[in-house]
Amino acid sequence: MDETIISAARSRLYSGVISDVLDSLGHWQHAMAPNVRPLDESLTLVGRARTGLYARVYHIDPAVNPYELEIKLIDSLEPDDVAVLACPPGNQVAPWGELLSTAARARKAAGAVTDGLVRDVRFIRAMGFPVFAGAIGPLDSKGRGSVVSIDVPIECGGVAVHPGDWIFGDVDGVCVIPGAIAEKVIQLSLDKVDKETTVRDELAAGELLATVFARHGIL
Amino acid sequence: MDETIISAARSRLYSGVISDVLDSLGHWQHAMAPNVRPLDESLTLVGRARTGLYARVYHIDPAVNPYELEIKLIDSLEPDDVAVLACPPGNQVAPWGELLSTAARARKAAGAVTDGLVRDVRFIRAMGFPVFAGAIGPLDSKGRGSVVSIDVPIECGGVAVHPGDWIFGDVDGVCVIPGAIAEKVIQLSLDKVDKETTVRDELAAGELLATVFARHGIL
Amino acid sequence: MDETIISAARSRLYSGVISDVLDSLGHWQHAMAPNVRPLDESLTLVGRARTGLYARVYHIDPAVNPYELEIKLIDSLEPDDVAVLACPPGNQVAPWGELLSTAARARKAAGAVTDGLVRDVRFIRAMGFPVFAGAIGPLDSKGRGSVVSIDVPIECGGVAVHPGDWIFGDVDGVCVIPGAIAEKVIQLSLDKVDKETTVRDELAAGELLATVFARHGIL
Repeated sequence: MDETIISAARSRLYSGVISDVLDSLGHWQHAMAPNVRPLDESLTLVGRARTGLYARVYHIDPAVNPYELEIKLIDSLEPDDVAVLACPPGNQVAPWGELLSTAARARKAAGAVTDGLVRDVRFIRAMGFPVFAGAIGPLDSKGRGSVVSIDVPIECGGVAVHPGDWIFGDVDGVCVIPGAIAEKVIQLSLDKVDKETTVRDELAAGELLATVFARHGIL
Repeated sequence: MDETIISAARSRLYSGVISDVLDSLGHWQHAMAPNVRPLDESLTLVGRARTGLYARVYHIDPAVNPYELEIKLIDSLEPDDVAVLACPPGNQVAPWGELLSTAARARKAAGAVTDGLVRDVRFIRAMGFPVFAGAIGPLDSKGRGSVVSIDVPIECGGVAVHPGDWIFGDVDGVCVIPGAIAEKVIQLSLDKVDKETTVRDELAAGELLATVFARHGIL
Repeated sequence: MDETIISAARSRLYSGVISDVLDSLGHWQHAMAPNVRPLDESLTLVGRARTGLYARVYHIDPAVNPYELEIKLIDSLEPDDVAVLACPPGNQVAPWGELLSTAARARKAAGAVTDGLVRDVRFIRAMGFPVFAGAIGPLDSKGRGSVVSIDVPIECGGVAVHPGDWIFGDVDGVCVIPGAIAEKVIQLSLDKVDKETTVRDELAAGELLATVFARHGIL
């Protein structure tokens, strides 16, 4: 996607409008569960999904580097990529923290999303790196979970994510946009934002919702 | 209720003292579940409940305005009213957002409460409009849920809410005060606040809890 | 524990590093569930556990002071103690609030932790007193729950806590450190922090994770 449109998406869009446009195109299952929250509510994340799938483990194999695939994923991130890490149900482990954030930012990645936990929140917030997580907690993945596949379809926060899908995350949550329609969705969203601004102005001036809805058909 | 007492409640009370007074009058089931949180923890919400009941839907009927009853509720809000919207269990939908907030504020409503989701959080916070919600998420109600009744008894956040009950919400949560005793509860709460200030001062000065509790009977 | 090491722990450590060191010593069950969150994410809590166990009650016995054991616990807190209050599953009650915070601070306690609720959040934040809780809500324990034992082993946030264990809490969560190894864990954590700083600097300079992990063995 063109850098101009990515940049417009980051500065002018919000996830409600992205969600409405996806609905209007028949894509209803695009919003991650509401427990997936930004560490920093002021940041907007827009980027291409690079996926990783976690599985639980209950031992440490001294012959194996438990971080091998995770390291491979992070070291191969390209500008505007978003690491999306799916954890098994009931997960209490943090697959993401400040050292991975630092490494991902050095690759110019756009951010990270996981339905698992994140740790080192203070450092990550200080970096201004957009990270979205299912919860916050200190437990490392070593001996508890491991990335078993990268760059494969996953389900994260209850939503299917394919490599190359686009991620839009902000204070309202995280939307997954199928790669094939991502540019169209962002263009339509930019159009809808202008319409919502008109509606807001009319409502703030005291017009009734019924009148404004009849005029514009959005709410 | 008199504007003077509403104003005193907004500036001097907190939900812990309201809750204690309701307990003392035998009203034990008055606090919404703790997932119902303020979008802005610095705001206090005091107002009269105007209720709406959501049900799930799984289709869009092109002949019907899906927002009809919701619009009717918002357009009929009066000063100091609070829109209280009850969602079905497992709800992932946002019945409230910034356009409804803008419309409600134009009617001089006091705020909104839902055990469902809310979206457009950035705009609502910038408005300083008190909104309490069960979670945050981007999904619109269109095609997912619809208001089926307004101005009827509902259950929101696990608590029965009748039209005309009073809502007190702040950083500690949301209490529902039966309409018939609302003024009494607020008067008794204002009295209790003064007593708690005395207790706090004595404890801060280093007196033992046992001594202070024996003297004042509150804790 | 020496005041110098307590003070170093408070200013230089974070719960991720404490957690990793506990893992490395074979203590895997040390992190409270992620719903146990700080009221103030900027504060770090380090102190010795003083425990209290809540049970549900459904009546008020006028012949009994329902706060008796809780008062006994708070009034006997010593400098650097942390009140740790375990609530039964499904608890909706706040065993902790601002008056207990004021009393505990007057005894020079380090803070409080509960897997139940806390109320009077605005006052507690203004005090700068470190409190961690499972959720926020206004309901008092009177008539709903009561401390049945103090200074006994408990389970709080899913983790066993013994009197004399050490508590480390910050924005990333709460770790419980067995009393017998607390000083060792803090010393090892201080060492690990220096190593993580080196790793962070190398990653920020653009070195690959694979290279840095091979060099230092931590991530």
